[in-house]
Amino acid sequence: MTRFLPEHLLTGYQSFLDKRLPSERQRLRQLAESGQQPKTMVIACCDSRTAPEIIFDTAPGEIFVVRNVANLVPPYEPDGEYHATSAALEFAIHALKVEHIVVLGHGGCGGIHAALSPSAEPLSPGDFIGKWMSLLDPVARAVGSNDHMTDLERHAALERIAIRYSIANLRTFPPIVALESEGKLSLHGAWVDIARGELWAMDPETGDFMRPLE
Amino acid sequence: MTRFLPEHLLTGYQSFLDKRLPSERQRLRQLAESGQQPKTMVIACCDSRTAPEIIFDTAPGEIFVVRNVANLVPPYEPDGEYHATSAALEFAIHALKVEHIVVLGHGGCGGIHAALSPSAEPLSPGDFIGKWMSLLDPVARAVGSNDHMTDLERHAALERIAIRYSIANLRTFPPIVALESEGKLSLHGAWVDIARGELWAMDPETGDFMRPLE
Amino acid sequence: MTRFLPEHLLTGYQSFLDKRLPSERQRLRQLAESGQQPKTMVIACCDSRTAPEIIFDTAPGEIFVVRNVANLVPPYEPDGEYHATSAALEFAIHALKVEHIVVLGHGGCGGIHAALSPSAEPLSPGDFIGKWMSLLDPVARAVGSNDHMTDLERHAALERIAIRYSIANLRTFPPIVALESEGKLSLHGAWVDIARGELWAMDPETGDFMRPLE
Amino acid sequence: MTRFLPEHLLTGYQSFLDKRLPSERQRLRQLAESGQQPKTMVIACCDSRTAPEIIFDTAPGEIFVVRNVANLVPPYEPDGEYHATSAALEFAIHALKVEHIVVLGHGGCGGIHAALSPSAEPLSPGDFIGKWMSLLDPVARAVGSNDHMTDLERHAALERIAIRYSIANLRTFPPIVALESEGKLSLHGAWVDIARGELWAMDPETGDFMRPLE
Repeated sequence: MTRFLPEHLLTGYQSFLDKRLPSERQRLRQLAESGQQPKTMVIACCDSRTAPEIIFDTAPGEIFVVRNVANLVPPYEPDGEYHATSAALEFAIHALKVEHIVVLGHGGCGGIHAALSPSAEPLSPGDFIGKWMSLLDPVARAVGSNDHMTDLERHAALERIAIRYSIANLRTFPPIVALESEGKLSLHGAWVDIARGELWAMDPETGDFMRPLE
Repeated sequence: MTRFLPEHLLTGYQSFLDKRLPSERQRLRQLAESGQQPKTMVIACCDSRTAPEIIFDTAPGEIFVVRNVANLVPPYEPDGEYHATSAALEFAIHALKVEHIVVLGHGGCGGIHAALSPSAEPLSPGDFIGKWMSLLDPVARAVGSNDHMTDLERHAALERIAIRYSIANLRTFPPIVALESEGKLSLHGAWVDIARGELWAMDPETGDFMRPLE
Repeated sequence: MTRFLPEHLLTGYQSFLDKRLPSERQRLRQLAESGQQPKTMVIACCDSRTAPEIIFDTAPGEIFVVRNVANLVPPYEPDGEYHATSAALEFAIHALKVEHIVVLGHGGCGGIHAALSPSAEPLSPGDFIGKWMSLLDPVARAVGSNDHMTDLERHAALERIAIRYSIANLRTFPPIVALESEGKLSLHGAWVDIARGELWAMDPETGDFMRPLE
Repeated sequence: MTRFLPEHLLTGYQSFLDKRLPSERQRLRQLAESGQQPKTMVIACCDSRTAPEIIFDTAPGEIFVVRNVANLVPPYEPDGEYHATSAALEFAIHALKVEHIVVLGHGGCGGIHAALSPSAEPLSPGDFIGKWMSLLDPVARAVGSNDHMTDLERHAALERIAIRYSIANLRTFPPIVALESEGKLSLHGAWVDIARGELWAMDPETGDFMRPLE
């Protein structure tokens, strides 16, 4: 089998077998039998540095996770097209009945960078990233055109704006609005400073991001 | 901050700060400065029991990860619509220049269950899961109508068929075909038996899934 | 005598005389005097790799064994033709009054391969294998025509389907139905992974095959 | 799984896993990969006391085994009916190209007993044993009606006659005749004295059964 998967993944799998599996075996068997029952859904970025399972040190079965470029939630569009993120949301809310949805952004996001460089050459003729990040067009322009902010400031600003925008888009899904008003579902925002492994959490009242008080 | 995020995530974050961060600090700082350079992209399911970072015991920066329901890759469609998975693919191939793409399926997949129950009541009026899983329509019928197989067998069969189908769809993206033929990119399939924490790897010649011979 | 039997069998017989016979002598004498009283009948394949006496490490007298190609049970047909398997069943049930019947299949079965290649050239003009395996026609087609499964997957699927079909055929024998309903006879399915010497047992409720959870 | 198979078989399987599998693992893996290549086919009785794998202490992959009541070979009948034994023969000769076929009888055979009691009450309305053992009608009558022999002598006589008769029937299969004349296939007879665990081999010239000279 060693020729069937990248070597570094096989090494890691062996490490999983040796170190983690022994203590998780019971839990995994139970999770397979009873099905998953996560209380929380996390919408995170594909970025290799921001796995929510690492940041939140979660166990198997603990979080239901969508990962797309720049952790975006498109607005509700029951239009006949297939939508990866909306399908995951529907499953999390109606089948798993999660109690929390967390939109998790991070610093140095390549998707945010692309959203701030709309006139850049597309990565490929299909320009999939360009189309995907155009989801942020309604909120990216004002930041992108603000010459008084540095590049880093524009990025950091849009990373936070995008999290709040995705949360606003979550609220375009009728069942989310209903569940929130019944107190059965809470929406959260968070942002990770990769360089420090530091988490910032969004104040739901003000939209501000705050570090935990160490 | 304790009121801003689900309690179990804050507990997990504290555990990350105490146990993992000290040994990752150097690496994270470097990853933030130089940007991510993962060699491998993993397309996995949202399922809470199948985080690739846990199965492969990966470090931050090691794998670029898309997670959608049932780890599907839609076929290449440069049609003007936004496609979460295609955008991530484009970014992985053109910006990150990954050398491997792994489609990682798993047992007991709720999306596969939905694909095998096409006449079931939609989860919500939008029927996002129904539309998303209709991506498998071309390959699901023959399995779904086989009354001589058990439910579990139909599921296990379609889980594997779907992985091969997603790999075939990857090959509808022109740059993937080109990179593969130049030997710069390899496509892989894998499947996880949740109950056992056991990995099965796809033989790229035959499409069969094999357990490592311990 | 050395010229009367294949050398490897004589070598093996000498090994039996030296190693096993001394401890079995008492038991064999008693079995010859009182007659056999096995509690279990096993219907297994002729395949040289799947002797039930080896897999189940049984003692002389422990299991009554039919072995035919692909461990098939034909349906009840009191039609005047002689049927090897039906005769053995009748003897096991009425003369030996066994309490268990186990249909034991295995991976890589040549008979199953033939059943999935109905248009192949017959092995000989009599086409005995073709006729024998046509017993599976009612259940083989749906698997055989599924182009989305690999050869190995089609085989593995039909191996399991055939076990369940043979068990269903056992239930076309009126006395088996009667004994089962009286709780005097149990029917079982099992499957062996030759490469690993691994046994999978059939859940009688669902028909699924499960590995023992070591 | 303990509820899915008879307890004594599970105990035996555990014994196989503990004692025999470790030393057979390599061989089994190879046999699974390369397919079976037995040199010898054995036609034995279903009787629980006469497993050829025990008498000949064979390893997995060594002998291809048909077991039916009284180890009979029906004559060649390419008549459209399915015949378990003929199918196995065809497979052994044409697909496996075995070099030896051994018909293995034994003392105290219940099928031979039935053949000598043709007017007994059938075991069931289908009378499958009666029909099956009627294969011996052409050779059983003279012994059965010989009042000068004891029961035990009549049984022992017919057990040996039946072995020679099955060997004669083997020679009604055209390819067997051809292969024998080319020196590519040898036919053998053997008989086991259960009480002593003692093997008798047939002299192919005379048809006599002889004990190995201890």
